[in-house]
Amino acid sequence: MSTNDTEVVFEPGRQDIVVTRVFDAPREVVFRAYTDPRLIPRWWGARRFVTEVDHMDVRRGGQWRFVTRNAETGAEYAFRGVYHDVAAPERIVSTFEFEQGGPGHLQLAVDTFEEIGGRTRYVNVSLFTSVEDRDGWIPTDMDKGVRESMDLLEQLVHGLRG
Amino acid sequence: MSTNDTEVVFEPGRQDIVVTRVFDAPREVVFRAYTDPRLIPRWWGARRFVTEVDHMDVRRGGQWRFVTRNAETGAEYAFRGVYHDVAAPERIVSTFEFEQGGPGHLQLAVDTFEEIGGRTRYVNVSLFTSVEDRDGWIPTDMDKGVRESMDLLEQLVHGLRG
Repeated sequence: MSTNDTEVVFEPGRQDIVVTRVFDAPREVVFRAYTDPRLIPRWWGARRFVTEVDHMDVRRGGQWRFVTRNAETGAEYAFRGVYHDVAAPERIVSTFEFEQGGPGHLQLAVDTFEEIGGRTRYVNVSLFTSVEDRDGWIPTDMDKGVRESMDLLEQLVHGLRG
Repeated sequence: MSTNDTEVVFEPGRQDIVVTRVFDAPREVVFRAYTDPRLIPRWWGARRFVTEVDHMDVRRGGQWRFVTRNAETGAEYAFRGVYHDVAAPERIVSTFEFEQGGPGHLQLAVDTFEEIGGRTRYVNVSLFTSVEDRDGWIPTDMDKGVRESMDLLEQLVHGLRG
């Protein structure tokens, strides 16, 4: 995989989506960009969205909530979750809920950051409560948004790497 | 399904285990037995285990940790997690990690309590990070332990119902 490819895998019949991306920066830098509330607006979400961090307390039991606004239509969407585990700079386990998605339709996200020769292999496994729940995200252009977000994160970590 | 049957479903190729049980008590009573730290030792885990609550803070972002000891061999096992959502008496969403199972091999548990004519239909969906992770639990007699635990909970809620 070249540095600039984000892989988004939906395997039929499974309850997960697996996103993989190699960043051209050490994992401490990628982890920092991923967990610093001040840096979230620089990369989180698709390009046409503007994200604000309502709160983000990156530790076991800490909560996060982001509000993202479509810059064209003004429509707002909120997302929230709780951190189960934060092992810097290797792993974050957290829940992820789309507030407008209805109760109980959340995801468990396992993020891993692996250092490979000064670069970082990032893997996000998102687990859904059912295959149907997961498949409901497929027509939403979610994978396009993820790729845009990963490209923005790549640009950010290039800058931070200095 | 009769009141005394616990259904434990592992569907091939899926990443979840679904446990269903109907309790002969109102859901406020079942929810209380499920969430009161003082009552956990009465029903949590298989019959030959004795469980102690290290801590259990039942609210969004709260953490829990239980230590369970095999009464015959003395072997101890610890489990922990974080609450994502607590909507009494309807739903609890939490993470579940076997401490000796290694980092990142956790489960997301969605518990729902539905009232049906004075009885309560309890459903637990446990989501695993992979099919392999889930299948690793099958040979452990986990389903036997779950059935025993659900039988103990039934006895408990009968007593609480008064």
